[in-house]
Amino acid sequence: MTTDQVDLVLRSFRCLIADLVQHFNGGHPGGAIGMAAMGLSLYKHGMKYSPTNPDYFNRDRFVLSNGHTCLFQYTFNHLVGYKHMTMDQLKTYHSKEWDSYCPGHPEIEHPGIEVTTGPLGQGIANAVGMAIASKNLAATYNKPEFPVVNNTIWCMIGDACLQEGVGLEAISLAGHFKLNNLVVMYDNNQISCDGSIDLTNTENVNEKMKASGWNVIDVEDACYNVDGILQAMEKAKQSTDKPTFINCRTVIGVGSNVEGDAKAHGAAFGEDNVKAYKIALGMDPEKYFHVPDEVYDYFSDIVPRGQQLEKEWNDLVENYVAKYPQLGADFLRRVEGKLPENWKQYIPESFPDSPTPSRKSAGLVCNPLAKNINNFMVGTADLSPSVNMIWDGKVDFQHPDLKTTCGINGDYTGRYVHWGIREHAMAAISNGIAAYNKGTFIPVTSSFFMFYLYAAPAVRMGALQHLKTIHVATHDSIGTGEDGPTHQPIELAALYRAMPNLLYIRPCDSQETAGAWEVALEQDATPSIISLSRQALKQYPQNSSRENVRKGAYIFKDTPFPDITLIGVGSEMSFAVETAELLESQYGIKARIVSFPCQRLFEQQSLEYKRSVLDRRTQPIVVIEAYAATGWERYATAGISMSTFGKSLPGAEAYTYFGYNSQKISLKIKSYLDNLKNDDSLRWEFTDLNM
Amino acid sequence: MTTDQVDLVLRSFRCLIADLVQHFNGGHPGGAIGMAAMGLSLYKHGMKYSPTNPDYFNRDRFVLSNGHTCLFQYTFNHLVGYKHMTMDQLKTYHSKEWDSYCPGHPEIEHPGIEVTTGPLGQGIANAVGMAIASKNLAATYNKPEFPVVNNTIWCMIGDACLQEGVGLEAISLAGHFKLNNLVVMYDNNQISCDGSIDLTNTENVNEKMKASGWNVIDVEDACYNVDGILQAMEKAKQSTDKPTFINCRTVIGVGSNVEGDAKAHGAAFGEDNVKAYKIALGMDPEKYFHVPDEVYDYFSDIVPRGQQLEKEWNDLVENYVAKYPQLGADFLRRVEGKLPENWKQYIPESFPDSPTPSRKSAGLVCNPLAKNINNFMVGTADLSPSVNMIWDGKVDFQHPDLKTTCGINGDYTGRYVHWGIREHAMAAISNGIAAYNKGTFIPVTSSFFMFYLYAAPAVRMGALQHLKTIHVATHDSIGTGEDGPTHQPIELAALYRAMPNLLYIRPCDSQETAGAWEVALEQDATPSIISLSRQALKQYPQNSSRENVRKGAYIFKDTPFPDITLIGVGSEMSFAVETAELLESQYGIKARIVSFPCQRLFEQQSLEYKRSVLDRRTQPIVVIEAYAATGWERYATAGISMSTFGKSLPGAEAYTYFGYNSQKISLKIKSYLDNLKNDDSLRWEFTDLNM
Repeated sequence: MTTDQVDLVLRSFRCLIADLVQHFNGGHPGGAIGMAAMGLSLYKHGMKYSPTNPDYFNRDRFVLSNGHTCLFQYTFNHLVGYKHMTMDQLKTYHSKEWDSYCPGHPEIEHPGIEVTTGPLGQGIANAVGMAIASKNLAATYNKPEFPVVNNTIWCMIGDACLQEGVGLEAISLAGHFKLNNLVVMYDNNQISCDGSIDLTNTENVNEKMKASGWNVIDVEDACYNVDGILQAMEKAKQSTDKPTFINCRTVIGVGSNVEGDAKAHGAAFGEDNVKAYKIALGMDPEKYFHVPDEVYDYFSDIVPRGQQLEKEWNDLVENYVAKYPQLGADFLRRVEGKLPENWKQYIPESFPDSPTPSRKSAGLVCNPLAKNINNFMVGTADLSPSVNMIWDGKVDFQHPDLKTTCGINGDYTGRYVHWGIREHAMAAISNGIAAYNKGTFIPVTSSFFMFYLYAAPAVRMGALQHLKTIHVATHDSIGTGEDGPTHQPIELAALYRAMPNLLYIRPCDSQETAGAWEVALEQDATPSIISLSRQALKQYPQNSSRENVRKGAYIFKDTPFPDITLIGVGSEMSFAVETAELLESQYGIKARIVSFPCQRLFEQQSLEYKRSVLDRRTQPIVVIEAYAATGWERYATAGISMSTFGKSLPGAEAYTYFGYNSQKISLKIKSYLDNLKNDDSLRWEFTDLNM
Repeated sequence: MTTDQVDLVLRSFRCLIADLVQHFNGGHPGGAIGMAAMGLSLYKHGMKYSPTNPDYFNRDRFVLSNGHTCLFQYTFNHLVGYKHMTMDQLKTYHSKEWDSYCPGHPEIEHPGIEVTTGPLGQGIANAVGMAIASKNLAATYNKPEFPVVNNTIWCMIGDACLQEGVGLEAISLAGHFKLNNLVVMYDNNQISCDGSIDLTNTENVNEKMKASGWNVIDVEDACYNVDGILQAMEKAKQSTDKPTFINCRTVIGVGSNVEGDAKAHGAAFGEDNVKAYKIALGMDPEKYFHVPDEVYDYFSDIVPRGQQLEKEWNDLVENYVAKYPQLGADFLRRVEGKLPENWKQYIPESFPDSPTPSRKSAGLVCNPLAKNINNFMVGTADLSPSVNMIWDGKVDFQHPDLKTTCGINGDYTGRYVHWGIREHAMAAISNGIAAYNKGTFIPVTSSFFMFYLYAAPAVRMGALQHLKTIHVATHDSIGTGEDGPTHQPIELAALYRAMPNLLYIRPCDSQETAGAWEVALEQDATPSIISLSRQALKQYPQNSSRENVRKGAYIFKDTPFPDITLIGVGSEMSFAVETAELLESQYGIKARIVSFPCQRLFEQQSLEYKRSVLDRRTQPIVVIEAYAATGWERYATAGISMSTFGKSLPGAEAYTYFGYNSQKISLKIKSYLDNLKNDDSLRWEFTDLNM
């Protein structure tokens, strides 16, 4: 390469960005312009990828954690030869085109995009997940002379990822795991929306990264200094036991009239300023969206290079499979993202009939799966003793040299992850593990349900990206008990029931728990939360159905000519069952019971099925759940639910305190039915039967 | 003090903790036992407080961020003479007593507890808020020889607060603000539920804290080394421009059979082990809940010392008010937690009739309030240009010596806070500002609504603690546009509408925005989220009502003999208004319109009022909102709502894409009404009229 060539590429790239943002008079020009030389270094030199096959398995992964600079990625994808990314496509940025490949933030659905980014701090956590995935596969499958998995994860960040908590959690973990296959390139332009970063952050970033176990490399003048960036990247690749942080000093909107100013961040420069910019950069001010042929020429080696990389890898894998047929077959299955066909055989057929906490049932289901199927990557946010996700002989994912004080060690083949008290990063990193390659891993996270509020932004990103991750959420009601209102979810189910493309499943006993796992694992592109009790739950082997969990709700106990239907849900099912008995024995009221583990699955059923289970039009229906009623009004005519936060009492006593006592409930329902006798139209309003 | 006395206090305290946890065979003994010497140093020496008046204004604040060690705080409160905290009360820990002062985590309602803790990382952020509050008051009111506010904020943390993202965000900010009145005491026992901390965290904590702008002091052997702790505390108080981190090396459950082991964390030792523990500590194994008189004697100076501190402060304030009558009166008003009586006069009476983004309306309302009333502490998570919360002449809260690159500086009297890209800490720290003293501050946070999912755990803690904080949530719908699905809330309103003790208010125009602020400010003990549009909204001066926002919903446009009611909500009101017009002009269908800014406020109205506004029993009701329908089923019989994530398109086009077009909506409603004509019972089921 010559300095002139590089110079022309940078100038052309920058003017193109200015044009594209000006085109619809909106968007984010400054970051992409500042990062041009970093991008050139990556796309031309540092990164292993193949534009004609963006999903080639052993490619390096690139995550644009500062996703608002998406034009950076779109434009490089255009220049290096991703076919879909035509100049016309680039011009759809911020346009009204419904089928644009250039949305306001990168989206996983599109070729050459590894993850959807935008909410700051998520991308860097995703990148940590990809580095974990890569390390685990390499440790599991690589053999001498057969490095079938040896890719690098590149992650571009801005200042935000060093401020957002989820980013900080992920950084700490990456250092702990010594992920030397991870390189974070920091676009250090010291500007955010409010002004200069020192308005709000004056810490010593390099020292902080070093203290967190990272290799730190400085690059001055990173708007132009391609050599410096390349040397840093080369050094990063040679790191043996640390992730690398390349601190690239850049200037936002460099060369423009707003360079180094917050104004360069999120607005077009203005037509005149774009012209002036082109003149300043020695480009023709009258040419729009202009890419000189020399620039395309400069990148013309990328497509064949990528094809060559692919071919070499394919050959390598072919020889590997020949030499290691069993391991090779297993590797190919993982590459294809498949579970073993017999996966269901590992799920127990029956469970003890004695009262069992569903968190324990979940362990009985998941542990044999995780033990026998290496797609499973199971972890917990420091609640191993509570969530029951440890299987016999589990190996921790750890750097092999780590010797812990408590003597529990591991290596990179390990598939049990101690996430620490970092629920948000646990979920965000798990998204990255899932996104590494569809189906290669099934990440399973675990914590108390309440703390999935900490993790919620990442759970959302998983749902949005169609990533099949399973979240094991224990202690899911006021039955959690003594830990009190800070630990008792009341309103959280409303969020997850409303969240698109997520299954929130609350099984009522072990069979339903098995059903919840089956349905979660059968999903192709939908994450699930399996919501479980702390306390022991009665088992209903005569009533509960593993199979029917799939339908979201089903008739749990029928009765001829019922006066009322009770909806029983998850950890509170016993109140429905006992109440039905009391209603009959005390008042001669006949109640049928519907078990309702998952609203979204129920919504996917036919209208005919739905009405066969629940029909508000013909009958009073009372839901009994120790959550806010929000959302149940669709199915029930009345609810025994929570309208306040919980209380610190032993679990059974907490239920009593809030009126979850079958005797009290049946009295309330009796009185509700009496009211309906006087005025049946009341049935058409939702009635709160709370305390 | 003699070594023997200290020794006896520590031994007695530790055995009492072991007994209390054994009493109900559950709870968290190990941390409290390990921290005994830290507690003794604080409660006997370091901390300024008054047990007979726990709310005395200029007391030091103590936050137990590792809230599961609550017995630590309860037991010291008992020993030093908080009257309510009797030995009988201590024994209610984990009991069935409904009126216990000893819940599983400390709760703000109880004397001597500054904030409710439990969800890890929140407490340290609250402490940062209290330190900000104290600094701001001191800078505003103190005069030479009149240090009317000069308290220290003490915060105890465990390992978790150094792992949780919200803790890390808060730590970074505390260093930036140079809060030398904040002392964090780290119970460094290197144990968490899963085992030793090095399973998941191997960073150099001290170096990380130093890089974050903290003063770091080590204390070895902190289970016994009271002198060392006291020296560190003294040094911390002398810090001129940094918060202090005292790294206290402790042993969890020290002296017990499980000392230094994760087993000491969350379970009783067992009866025999408790006995053995007492023997090992030289106490009588047959005495339970035993506090030797010498221990009470040891702390007997605390009550009179506290009363003396109070008296001195009261005298100081009396002289201060005499010398500075105007400032003094203002100070007393703040101490009483009051707004000026005339606060409503600052809210404009009228607004421009031209289309206005409600985020702009919110600025028109809040900025004069914040400018004129010094209770307001307004901040943004790096979205100053978007959220419009800057008033004329605002001063930033900053250390006075800070000179920023962008030239925007401030001092500790400032009441505008650049929180950085740290939504979670913004909300958690704001809780601390509010908790400093009820009503003294009204913290106002701001960001895009979507990013209140990051902040949700802290918003919840504010609602749980009855802290009046106001969250300004802009860009609240798919109208956000090009930023795409990662920035477009769909399901988030369901969370906040279900959350107890929170007002989620979506005003439809400037008048309703003014109403939202009024109602939020009139609350005594309830936080609010005011949910606002990015895009310009039509104004409805003939229909919208500031006053009626209080009622949650009201008749916006009536019509005689209506065929249907449309519910219009916030940023989507225009679709309801246009649809009503089209229904009449095209199909002769008469629609009345209800504006519905807040579900919780509506639920607080009388049944009579509610039915006068909406009556599902007599009429079809269709809600039009670009969110998930979840919760609207209570009020409406059908909904035009969202069942998927959003899409990156310009705002108006995003609405079109998802069918939010009045022509299309009116056609759907026409067809819905036709269906009802054939089968009126359909009205009793909620019907999704989505795309």
